[in-house]
Amino acid sequence: MTIFKPIDEKKASSRVKKLFKRIKKERKINFIPNFWKTIANDPDTLERTWESLNQIMKKGALDPLTKELIYIAVSMTNSCEYCIRSHSASAKKKGMTDKMLKELIAVVGMANETNRLVESYQVKVDEFLK
Amino acid sequence: MTIFKPIDEKKASSRVKKLFKRIKKERKINFIPNFWKTIANDPDTLERTWESLNQIMKKGALDPLTKELIYIAVSMTNSCEYCIRSHSASAKKKGMTDKMLKELIAVVGMANETNRLVESYQVKVDEFLK
Amino acid sequence: MTIFKPIDEKKASSRVKKLFKRIKKERKINFIPNFWKTIANDPDTLERTWESLNQIMKKGALDPLTKELIYIAVSMTNSCEYCIRSHSASAKKKGMTDKMLKELIAVVGMANETNRLVESYQVKVDEFLK
Amino acid sequence: MTIFKPIDEKKASSRVKKLFKRIKKERKINFIPNFWKTIANDPDTLERTWESLNQIMKKGALDPLTKELIYIAVSMTNSCEYCIRSHSASAKKKGMTDKMLKELIAVVGMANETNRLVESYQVKVDEFLK
Amino acid sequence: MTIFKPIDEKKASSRVKKLFKRIKKERKINFIPNFWKTIANDPDTLERTWESLNQIMKKGALDPLTKELIYIAVSMTNSCEYCIRSHSASAKKKGMTDKMLKELIAVVGMANETNRLVESYQVKVDEFLK
Amino acid sequence: MTIFKPIDEKKASSRVKKLFKRIKKERKINFIPNFWKTIANDPDTLERTWESLNQIMKKGALDPLTKELIYIAVSMTNSCEYCIRSHSASAKKKGMTDKMLKELIAVVGMANETNRLVESYQVKVDEFLK
Repeated sequence: MTIFKPIDEKKASSRVKKLFKRIKKERKINFIPNFWKTIANDPDTLERTWESLNQIMKKGALDPLTKELIYIAVSMTNSCEYCIRSHSASAKKKGMTDKMLKELIAVVGMANETNRLVESYQVKVDEFLK
Repeated sequence: MTIFKPIDEKKASSRVKKLFKRIKKERKINFIPNFWKTIANDPDTLERTWESLNQIMKKGALDPLTKELIYIAVSMTNSCEYCIRSHSASAKKKGMTDKMLKELIAVVGMANETNRLVESYQVKVDEFLK
Repeated sequence: MTIFKPIDEKKASSRVKKLFKRIKKERKINFIPNFWKTIANDPDTLERTWESLNQIMKKGALDPLTKELIYIAVSMTNSCEYCIRSHSASAKKKGMTDKMLKELIAVVGMANETNRLVESYQVKVDEFLK
Repeated sequence: MTIFKPIDEKKASSRVKKLFKRIKKERKINFIPNFWKTIANDPDTLERTWESLNQIMKKGALDPLTKELIYIAVSMTNSCEYCIRSHSASAKKKGMTDKMLKELIAVVGMANETNRLVESYQVKVDEFLK
Repeated sequence: MTIFKPIDEKKASSRVKKLFKRIKKERKINFIPNFWKTIANDPDTLERTWESLNQIMKKGALDPLTKELIYIAVSMTNSCEYCIRSHSASAKKKGMTDKMLKELIAVVGMANETNRLVESYQVKVDEFLK
Repeated sequence: MTIFKPIDEKKASSRVKKLFKRIKKERKINFIPNFWKTIANDPDTLERTWESLNQIMKKGALDPLTKELIYIAVSMTNSCEYCIRSHSASAKKKGMTDKMLKELIAVVGMANETNRLVESYQVKVDEFLK
């Protein structure tokens, strides 16, 4: 009841249809994943999110694969299953191997542990880090 | 009162002294940062954390710099100031430029936004992601 | 095995029965939602939570709908599916439209992004904010 | 060392200077708060964040004050001090009284409690909420 | 500006004064800690929180010290410095030794790591746990 | 697709087989729960996690049951369903009653509320707590 349903490509408004077309073209896919179909309930959010993601995830000083790994690390820390799955799929397309994903998980687990050690022991910032 | 003070290198037990020596040698530093000095209050935690970190952060399918970037991304998501600062310092030693850090932050910010869009809209996992 | 089952209205103790009666009367509903039926395993928690919620969510300087929106925003940030659904249902009863919910989600997503930008860039508190 | 310093208005690049000018004009302020000065280290992030915030926080189905309250609720849940302070200041400008802020805090506290009750008791989603 | 100041015991309203008196008597202290003085800005929240805490933290199937340890574990996971400090002080009064606190921290760190391993590997719930 | 499947005991490598044998022997169980079978995809993580958990959860200044309660409290705060279920099962084996679990949940809920009250009101650390 309270959930927004994914917007069907055929029943979408012309603004959303155009955005779906762009997504399929630029991502080289022939269907729209549920994330985009669901946030399409708010066309402003759909457009803004698509444009922001494109600007942020494109090749820069960091390559697109490294950016995907960072994305996955955040999603794991936030326990977002959909995000972990969809960005792992994107990362695999860009060259992530199973071994890389396992190492990524080990780092994410360890960072979450030491983050809490730091807070629990209330470690002071060293002078050389200021 | 309730906080554990950092353990001074000179006043440390012989077990802790040995661990501090290893840390300085393997990290090629001539002092012990507050994180290690503070968790040294629990020598078991000091030893286990040092060994786990070394195993996890060493070169593997992912290079050490990429691992540091992942570490920073988790620490930013958890708002751990000490962890952000100390791992940014480590990452810079391993080649992270300011431009890379800015792009990392942009990805971390965006991932935290879309993680919540997914949860808020309760996006269903696509068949192709199962 | 480890989960507490919802307490059936008919099998409840007389203390819980009385509380269920109050909930149905004050909420103007003719059944007890799972949240109340499940925390009824601990009658102290059931009573305290019911009374605290009533005190907090009633009309005050903020109207009940605005309070529901705030509740939903917290639940989205914590990724609590049940809480998002049940408080969205309550909010709709109090006048929340789909358009309002979409705008709420956009704010929640953006706030989660900028919260991390602030922590990542370690923005200093301005003098005028102290 | 690892932190980006706020960008001084006078020393900013012409792109950043223009953005600062827009911020001051549209916000009707005569100085740039630290958030904008600090993320100005990444002009893309500065521009994107400014435009996204403007689009999201403007009057719509929800009025700007309600949006600020939602923003504060998220920031409190994420423990972002700067965000709590700066958006409380914005909310006050838009009419938030002390009494409203206290009620907001009570809701945020309660929602964080019941969110965990739901997860701890693993409350099942009711049929009527699906 | 946006922060509520702690309420001075002498300048408090008579309702708040009475609550402060109860707190001092029942806690056997001769001053009011900042937590109570600050939330006293909202006397409803002060009274409700005091009564809820008393009900929840008193001896039951779990002894008061164990309850304090659980409180600290949550506060460490949420990185709430004030909460860690004040409940560590309470726990010490009730018999917590430094060795116990160190072991508590080790468990908190480890649980935060394995929680993320579970989410990252998306471990399925075993039949015997259902 | 993107998920690692649990490693079947019979098809495991000899290193993993040995670790599974140890787990069954030391835990006195005759099957391997999904957590261990899934992280076995990364034998280094399997071994490190098993050894760290054994070191941390064994009887010390805190008894093993208290450590399980702390573990559950963290898992509830992080909303990790698998972790809540599996450690509740372990805690029951070690003597946790239903009444203890209900009291634990009440403390976890309350701590999550007051943690946010502290952050929202930005309560200053008292002198006696420094």
